[in-house]
Amino acid sequence: MTVQAKTIALVGKLNATGVTESMAELANFLDQAGHTVLFEAETAQHMQLQAYACVTAPEIGKYADAAIVVGGDGTMLGIARQLAPYKVPLIGINQGRLGFITDIPLDRMLPVIAEMLEGKYVSEQRSLLQAIVVRDGNQIFSGMAFNDIVVSRGAGSGMVELRVDVDAHFMYNQRSDGLIVSTPTGSTAYALSAGGPLLHPSLRGIVMVPIAPHALSNRPIVLPDSSEIVIEIAAGRDISVNFDMQSFASLLHRDRIIVKRSAHTVTFLHPRGWNYYDTLREKLHWNEYPSVAGALN
Amino acid sequence: MTVQAKTIALVGKLNATGVTESMAELANFLDQAGHTVLFEAETAQHMQLQAYACVTAPEIGKYADAAIVVGGDGTMLGIARQLAPYKVPLIGINQGRLGFITDIPLDRMLPVIAEMLEGKYVSEQRSLLQAIVVRDGNQIFSGMAFNDIVVSRGAGSGMVELRVDVDAHFMYNQRSDGLIVSTPTGSTAYALSAGGPLLHPSLRGIVMVPIAPHALSNRPIVLPDSSEIVIEIAAGRDISVNFDMQSFASLLHRDRIIVKRSAHTVTFLHPRGWNYYDTLREKLHWNEYPSVAGALN
Amino acid sequence: MTVQAKTIALVGKLNATGVTESMAELANFLDQAGHTVLFEAETAQHMQLQAYACVTAPEIGKYADAAIVVGGDGTMLGIARQLAPYKVPLIGINQGRLGFITDIPLDRMLPVIAEMLEGKYVSEQRSLLQAIVVRDGNQIFSGMAFNDIVVSRGAGSGMVELRVDVDAHFMYNQRSDGLIVSTPTGSTAYALSAGGPLLHPSLRGIVMVPIAPHALSNRPIVLPDSSEIVIEIAAGRDISVNFDMQSFASLLHRDRIIVKRSAHTVTFLHPRGWNYYDTLREKLHWNEYPSVAGALN
Amino acid sequence: MTVQAKTIALVGKLNATGVTESMAELANFLDQAGHTVLFEAETAQHMQLQAYACVTAPEIGKYADAAIVVGGDGTMLGIARQLAPYKVPLIGINQGRLGFITDIPLDRMLPVIAEMLEGKYVSEQRSLLQAIVVRDGNQIFSGMAFNDIVVSRGAGSGMVELRVDVDAHFMYNQRSDGLIVSTPTGSTAYALSAGGPLLHPSLRGIVMVPIAPHALSNRPIVLPDSSEIVIEIAAGRDISVNFDMQSFASLLHRDRIIVKRSAHTVTFLHPRGWNYYDTLREKLHWNEYPSVAGALN
Repeated sequence: MTVQAKTIALVGKLNATGVTESMAELANFLDQAGHTVLFEAETAQHMQLQAYACVTAPEIGKYADAAIVVGGDGTMLGIARQLAPYKVPLIGINQGRLGFITDIPLDRMLPVIAEMLEGKYVSEQRSLLQAIVVRDGNQIFSGMAFNDIVVSRGAGSGMVELRVDVDAHFMYNQRSDGLIVSTPTGSTAYALSAGGPLLHPSLRGIVMVPIAPHALSNRPIVLPDSSEIVIEIAAGRDISVNFDMQSFASLLHRDRIIVKRSAHTVTFLHPRGWNYYDTLREKLHWNEYPSVAGALN
Repeated sequence: MTVQAKTIALVGKLNATGVTESMAELANFLDQAGHTVLFEAETAQHMQLQAYACVTAPEIGKYADAAIVVGGDGTMLGIARQLAPYKVPLIGINQGRLGFITDIPLDRMLPVIAEMLEGKYVSEQRSLLQAIVVRDGNQIFSGMAFNDIVVSRGAGSGMVELRVDVDAHFMYNQRSDGLIVSTPTGSTAYALSAGGPLLHPSLRGIVMVPIAPHALSNRPIVLPDSSEIVIEIAAGRDISVNFDMQSFASLLHRDRIIVKRSAHTVTFLHPRGWNYYDTLREKLHWNEYPSVAGALN
Repeated sequence: MTVQAKTIALVGKLNATGVTESMAELANFLDQAGHTVLFEAETAQHMQLQAYACVTAPEIGKYADAAIVVGGDGTMLGIARQLAPYKVPLIGINQGRLGFITDIPLDRMLPVIAEMLEGKYVSEQRSLLQAIVVRDGNQIFSGMAFNDIVVSRGAGSGMVELRVDVDAHFMYNQRSDGLIVSTPTGSTAYALSAGGPLLHPSLRGIVMVPIAPHALSNRPIVLPDSSEIVIEIAAGRDISVNFDMQSFASLLHRDRIIVKRSAHTVTFLHPRGWNYYDTLREKLHWNEYPSVAGALN
Repeated sequence: MTVQAKTIALVGKLNATGVTESMAELANFLDQAGHTVLFEAETAQHMQLQAYACVTAPEIGKYADAAIVVGGDGTMLGIARQLAPYKVPLIGINQGRLGFITDIPLDRMLPVIAEMLEGKYVSEQRSLLQAIVVRDGNQIFSGMAFNDIVVSRGAGSGMVELRVDVDAHFMYNQRSDGLIVSTPTGSTAYALSAGGPLLHPSLRGIVMVPIAPHALSNRPIVLPDSSEIVIEIAAGRDISVNFDMQSFASLLHRDRIIVKRSAHTVTFLHPRGWNYYDTLREKLHWNEYPSVAGALN
């Protein structure tokens, strides 16, 4: 079978040992197979690979049939936000233990990528969040998140009180360490540590997870992803909002963060046979029981 | 303004003190206002109200413009499942403390109902679950649930092991006291007690909440409501499945429960100004903090 | 060095493949080393080992310097309750994956036991609970628990309402699936699945863990082990109490279960170097992170 | 009956409206009844009450038979730490909603205090924690906590990794937002919000509660209060430790916090009939059920 020649962009985790060699190997492999290889500019610069074209995120969007990311889930989060406007499908190769969204092991990357370029893959769409921060009627910050948007207090500031409105209805005043607004993708990240539920990636939902809430009956709530969530800083100091823990803004009393589903989505390509539940089971050790005394014996 | 005459079915909680008087008062009020009053058969029989037509659930479906239920959330659950196939909108009057879905106080029912019959209401759709139980290839039971479908062990049987597949993908083998599959409506009921998240009624999702799971990393998971969930009894004895705690089936090793969203939905009518978050806040005491020592002072 | 000859009782898990061979090997090893071997009566009967003296639990209490249990944590629970009055130290050999309290692997049992009989071991005391059930002023049942005493509803009975008093002070009326009263030993068993904390074995405490409580602010509470806990069945049907899931009593409305620390304690001997935290870490997979996306990368 | 004249120290919440008037009223009342009134120096300065002797904490320790604190639980925490070395019993008057440890309502203070000075009270002892921070072998900070000692990350720093050893045994490496080490008193404060259990004040225990831990099987653990807990900063930046959220130290990689039970205890005097469970029940709303749909009807 002949595989049609494609244009493939490569993005790598910077400053990680071994990534340069892996990417050179991958680029050479793709080149030999007749594909066109592009390197994301910052990746190329760090790796000093001069044999290939070096392109910006918008150019990847314009020319690439797919982007292959070598790194961990964090690397993927960063590039996914940048490429979200351009609808380029993403493939993730993990140099360490497999991640939730980087699911091809480095040592098997060549045969797996070869097969995927023949069209044997599982495609999946993920949603993103976007938010603006409004102060005194003016937008002072905006950002996009693939995992979560988190409003939280600093270590020395006691607590934050947030007023939350959804679709123009008052939800509650929440006293806590903070509030996580998460996509289904983010539901296996910080939101999970804070006690949130898992959300299947194809659920059209957004989950709000309080961090150490004062009201003991405060529970995570899952909203339709059409919801507009407005979070106002009602009390507290040294408060900030972050987007995937990768961009930040400091907040003042009365600032409002307005969160919505992004108009963009990101497409991931997984190897044939990939399955969300397999990943969950492996990552969360669902098959390994603590062998509870007296119950399993 | 003239209100168009309507046909209204009345359903009441049986054997509850005061309900008969309230329903007679309500029926008389509707009759005086020119509406046609029908009584659900079982209600009529208990109340010995002979002035009004007495009808079955299918007849309510055929003739009534709306059904008014007087009782608590449990009464509403029962009648909502029966009326689900007929698309009759439901109105709930609560004789005690307001419920999640019976939200009109008894002592204000007449003016509120009058206003609602003038078209001043908030309409809202709720989804239901349906399930069949399959043994040796044969369907041995089927049921519908407005809140939840719960598979659980008896008090003397140690634990149950369930194999769960979703959309033909293996999810996990779960050792626990049981598993709750809940609608958004049920997310404020048993699922909440067992540690599940809240689901907004308009979220197109189903939540699976394990009850006392052995695997400490087992967490509630929210699936799209298009999912087909198959629960197989892998180990354990004295196991049963219930639908809204109102119908039951005993289960044997290898029985499979196949759960899907019902094709039916139920429409609730709420008084003008009704708001889901107001109800949550009031029922869950979100505004009453435990006044945590040292943090709020 | 010469080890002083000791009298060692052997107890084994019944009907478990391989246990007979292991016990014969162990008995022979001890006999060769000059120790006196006694077999617990029921074990001896199942294993048809006729070369050794066959003794009852009280006789083990009278004659044995230590009892070695081959099985899992469940086997140990059963024998520990029986031997509690006699102060015989217990050693646990696990034929499968190591348990919380049976911590010597079968394939290393001979050298480890040899070393322990030389006095190289870690000794540790565990507390037990005892309870009586009182109906109409009469005691109708009594029992002892090494892990937990659990009051719970049957699968078809909706919920139980329990009135709890501690040291003659009213604590609460609790609506739930049930209530677990657990020792520190039991805190890694059912209580943990139901959301309870871990209790270090040397903590002089008892933990009460509600199972799926209606009141969302209901939390596990740890009491001094001098507390007297009285649980009264305030509402519900098909309710029972169990002791380590190994003995049971059915309960009626107004029955009271009176729980106290047992006057007895059990002594476990662990191999040199044994450490509670090592066991916890291994059993609970504390070193294996789910590699949360975006946070660890 | 004649009440013996006593020396009573008064301490008040600074900058709180109405406190000055209440304290003047209280001082006058005590003075009239023949008792000697002392004012804590800072309180006296703020309140400009010049009719009474003005004393330091050590002087309160030396001369006072009891100290009455007017404010909230936070005010009490601050003064309790200062007075801990001097064994002066403390009485708490709450100007707002009753606290966990300030349990006399302002509007009933005079008759209640009168009765307590006649010897009609419930006495109760509470434990404290102390800790030192060690950097490169030198102690750089020390502090005492009545509620909790909390190690946590700043809002912008991703996570902290802590190595925890207890009594010289390695417990775990914990990746999280932080770790709370709490007394029984603190178990109703921040530790509770973070998912910790309640600890009865007379339990001789310390609870460690992780804040948003990565390992989903990480659970709160209750240790005997004889434990020495060593927390080492294994990774992370912008990390600090606080004592009752009232004193702080910034931490660096490899710093160690060594936590033990303080040699001091604090004695609280409560009005006759006071009961810990009454307070819990009221503060945690244990009698107000969310009236779970379908379960309570």
